[in-house]
Amino acid sequence: MTTRRLAFVIEYDGTAYAGWQRQPHAPTVQAVLEESLARITQAPCPIVGAGRTDAGVHALGQVAHGDSATGLPPERLRQALNALLPGDVAVRRVLDAPPDFHARRDARLRIYRYVVLSRPEPPALLRRYVHQVPGPIDLAAMRDAAALLRGRHDFGAFRAAGTPTATTVCDVRALAIDPRGRLVVFTVAADRFLRQMVRRLVGTLLAVGTGSLPREAVADILDGRGDARTAPPAPACGLYLARVRYAPGRLPEPQGPGPVL
Amino acid sequence: MTTRRLAFVIEYDGTAYAGWQRQPHAPTVQAVLEESLARITQAPCPIVGAGRTDAGVHALGQVAHGDSATGLPPERLRQALNALLPGDVAVRRVLDAPPDFHARRDARLRIYRYVVLSRPEPPALLRRYVHQVPGPIDLAAMRDAAALLRGRHDFGAFRAAGTPTATTVCDVRALAIDPRGRLVVFTVAADRFLRQMVRRLVGTLLAVGTGSLPREAVADILDGRGDARTAPPAPACGLYLARVRYAPGRLPEPQGPGPVL
Repeated sequence: MTTRRLAFVIEYDGTAYAGWQRQPHAPTVQAVLEESLARITQAPCPIVGAGRTDAGVHALGQVAHGDSATGLPPERLRQALNALLPGDVAVRRVLDAPPDFHARRDARLRIYRYVVLSRPEPPALLRRYVHQVPGPIDLAAMRDAAALLRGRHDFGAFRAAGTPTATTVCDVRALAIDPRGRLVVFTVAADRFLRQMVRRLVGTLLAVGTGSLPREAVADILDGRGDARTAPPAPACGLYLARVRYAPGRLPEPQGPGPVL
Repeated sequence: MTTRRLAFVIEYDGTAYAGWQRQPHAPTVQAVLEESLARITQAPCPIVGAGRTDAGVHALGQVAHGDSATGLPPERLRQALNALLPGDVAVRRVLDAPPDFHARRDARLRIYRYVVLSRPEPPALLRRYVHQVPGPIDLAAMRDAAALLRGRHDFGAFRAAGTPTATTVCDVRALAIDPRGRLVVFTVAADRFLRQMVRRLVGTLLAVGTGSLPREAVADILDGRGDARTAPPAPACGLYLARVRYAPGRLPEPQGPGPVL
């Protein structure tokens, strides 16, 4: 029996999940996908995701891989998965991948998006999908601070406590802040991210934008000078794993996240 | 004890509600608002809404009025209401209105928006807020058909069965269809609407756009010729009461619905 390596591009609403990664006693997106795959292919099908999104974090274009002996064409498999999956998880694409393709190790760039709603009233619509900031936000101050964060740096100050990793150096290739009406959209792209790094970056930039942190402090935090500390991480509900990019030829370019947020 | 006439601009996620209008045994937005108002002002405060949105329909700018003896300034009342209301209902503005202001009778224009997501995969994000159409949609055909519907007509064919009204003539002042990425946004403005009229207009235009109804049939449906019938109403989850307009001076112009969808 020959197996195929399959790749999946996945959209999910993270609200009801304890994150991507399978856990013993909590609902996770990985578990829900693996269960649907097992039902369709009549065999266990463990999968590996490109990014381990935390509880409550959403995805527009998570990528995962797994092996299966199923003979179903990718498009049929996609339709069967979407028919079985709960409404808050949708498979956008199924692809036949090279046999050694690895969704996490092969990823060259991960692109996250963070969506802030800037208005005094709480959002009744989209309350699960944005982080509301009631007061004014100084975009120029945030952009000045963001300029200090772009590039290759040790981002150890911006990771969740108690999560040791081999290296805390990341190459932040993009950090853009774009107003769209009353939304403020942060786009952060890097080769790798530390745990809670995007939410701590955004939380710190919002502290600058709302005046509770001087923009100069951001350089001190990054360099570990003095006693400057990052602001608390911005809430999970505003964060989206938007897209994962691979080396040319490793995986057909996933479709853009579409217009949904 | 003197009372003031208050006006409210309200945003809500209609998913969990049996509509705007108070009903004996079902949760409604009106009931939730009246209960919060009564708790804050320590007296019953019946309100009247500009539009009786159906079960599952959302609002970005519903308008309501009610009388209260409260001495709270409007901004304090707004904050108190938002602190008490469930997360899926938010008061965007509270205004002191003229004593004879009537949210429904004084409304000159109601603006609804209907949001379609045009893509093959079901939406995991925004699944409560858009109507997904999997196949291609012919925008030009829908716009041709929409041109037949603009203006003052008898829209009796586009109302829910069994809901008699004095007149079925409405003046549709705008009916625009705008693509935004993979969204298709319908904007319909009229002096008045019949029950389910927007959803039946959109359902019929989508039938034209997806090829299941010839565009010429729309004129026959409107004029009651032959046996042409409207398509089924488009689902409630894609519909938003976006804004209500009043004669100059009757009510300070409500803020726009903002960028939220």
